[in-house]
Amino acid sequence: MVTYREAGVDLERAESSVKIISKVLKKYRVSPENFGLFGGFYKLPDGSHLIASTDGVGTKLKIAFMAEKHDTIGSDLVFHCTNDIFVHGATPLFFLDYIAMGKLNLKTLESLIKGFARACNKVGCIILGGETAEMPGFYGKGEYDIVGFVTGKVEGKPIDGSDIKEGDILIGLPSNGLHTNGYSLARRIIFNKLGLKINSPLPYDKNLTVAEELLKIHREYYTMLKDLRIHIKGMAHITGGGIPGNLSRILPKRLKAVIRKDSWEIPEIFKFLLREGKIPEKEAYRVFNMGIGMIVIPKGESLLHKLEEKEEKFWIIGEVTKGEGIEII
Amino acid sequence: MVTYREAGVDLERAESSVKIISKVLKKYRVSPENFGLFGGFYKLPDGSHLIASTDGVGTKLKIAFMAEKHDTIGSDLVFHCTNDIFVHGATPLFFLDYIAMGKLNLKTLESLIKGFARACNKVGCIILGGETAEMPGFYGKGEYDIVGFVTGKVEGKPIDGSDIKEGDILIGLPSNGLHTNGYSLARRIIFNKLGLKINSPLPYDKNLTVAEELLKIHREYYTMLKDLRIHIKGMAHITGGGIPGNLSRILPKRLKAVIRKDSWEIPEIFKFLLREGKIPEKEAYRVFNMGIGMIVIPKGESLLHKLEEKEEKFWIIGEVTKGEGIEII
Repeated sequence: MVTYREAGVDLERAESSVKIISKVLKKYRVSPENFGLFGGFYKLPDGSHLIASTDGVGTKLKIAFMAEKHDTIGSDLVFHCTNDIFVHGATPLFFLDYIAMGKLNLKTLESLIKGFARACNKVGCIILGGETAEMPGFYGKGEYDIVGFVTGKVEGKPIDGSDIKEGDILIGLPSNGLHTNGYSLARRIIFNKLGLKINSPLPYDKNLTVAEELLKIHREYYTMLKDLRIHIKGMAHITGGGIPGNLSRILPKRLKAVIRKDSWEIPEIFKFLLREGKIPEKEAYRVFNMGIGMIVIPKGESLLHKLEEKEEKFWIIGEVTKGEGIEII
Repeated sequence: MVTYREAGVDLERAESSVKIISKVLKKYRVSPENFGLFGGFYKLPDGSHLIASTDGVGTKLKIAFMAEKHDTIGSDLVFHCTNDIFVHGATPLFFLDYIAMGKLNLKTLESLIKGFARACNKVGCIILGGETAEMPGFYGKGEYDIVGFVTGKVEGKPIDGSDIKEGDILIGLPSNGLHTNGYSLARRIIFNKLGLKINSPLPYDKNLTVAEELLKIHREYYTMLKDLRIHIKGMAHITGGGIPGNLSRILPKRLKAVIRKDSWEIPEIFKFLLREGKIPEKEAYRVFNMGIGMIVIPKGESLLHKLEEKEEKFWIIGEVTKGEGIEII
């Protein structure tokens, strides 16, 4: 049995860190009003809001290093960040990137920037700035870290889930794989336990290599949903913490979300990781997105018709009831 | 003789990287209008501008690791970032931080956040969000990287140096030491060449240890100058690249800045590093701030009187003439 904690990532310690941060920010009076949501809200004098978020791509980077493929990981980062502000209804305005390497490799740099640029072009935001840091002795040979920062804008009130009521349905939109979460655990199972190589075919699909599966670009939901914002009460981007850790961020108190795990197709990669890693199912739902990249709580039924018109794949994966917390049945 | 390149940082390669980035951003049509300035400009519909910037603190982090002191380096980062947007006249609105560690250490995390929070409180911006990433196998034991993103706002036109004319004077504001630049070179001289320890007293001042000198917090110029913006044509924050690399970012073409290096007091730490490292003087002015943390080009003489009234230390370090480039005489 391989757990996330054994793989070096401790979600409980991560939760303690949130409490510490919240306490310090309050003490120095620099806390935002909406601490803990996907993006921070900053109200402008005209009543509109700027929404900002920052993120990295975690140890998915290790896959890029092993595959020596650096032109997609930047897109992962942009889409991760823009999804995080779009759940609040924000149109992305601008993105900034940080790249740190032990020794600056111009070819790798160019590939990384291409990944950022292609993705920013897709979601219609500009790259307003960036920092490329050469830090001798910090990163292994050929390794680097990348960080993204995005700012978007909402005219009027941000979408924050506060209108969610008992009886609302939960729509699940498919992920295309791990997106950017759970890589420490996945790497442990695939490379350490099973001894697969980066270019090995996957046992469940001989036409797909480990690198191809694990470097699939984090899916973005902005272009699909941007014109449908008025039909949406709440959205949760399913990243680290899985469905329970992320849906809880927008679910009002005294409401419970019941998720039926037989209601969508779980992609093969997750079934494979659970089986081979003997991961307890509960743990898997806290680490991986399990095939659901975004959960949307619609206002009425019009959103479903619009998604059908667009021929977008979606599932009704559960509903909101009385109670508290997230229950996966 | 110790050079920056030998210490692992190649400024020419850094310049090539800027060209590559610029080319890719243009190709994908995601380039900002003002590429290459200290902060990127984003014009809002009401004519005001958002100004954003991102940075790290480079290998100054290594000093924090050696000294096991983590509660000031966050302030370095906030002040570095806010200085970078203030040179364009921006009032900082919000800051976001990224912290990455191999294994999450909650005590170190709390210290880092205190550093961010204290500094944000000082310059009046909130911490709108952040990401704490646990990345097993990425960073050495006890090590981490931190990245800051700041967004500010200018009502009307940003300060960009475009009004600078022949005959304008250059005002230098004192730095309090290395700020956040030149640490790879400084560490090489102090630790490798001279064999000093982190708590050794400095040869030129027995009352000051290496850690105390090298962890002095990057000075911020916002609170001093925020009410004086209308008296300012241009500002250059002297960071990586030194006076030549930074003043050139705001100096209009066909103008030259002549800097007289005998016009200000060079702090002892720089004299010591030059002497002990046998650093060529020209190189030193490209790596270190040499005692000037900010250069201000005033509109008329009122700024000088205001600074005198406030009892702020400053020097007239040169002037703008016909020609091109930065000449240090």
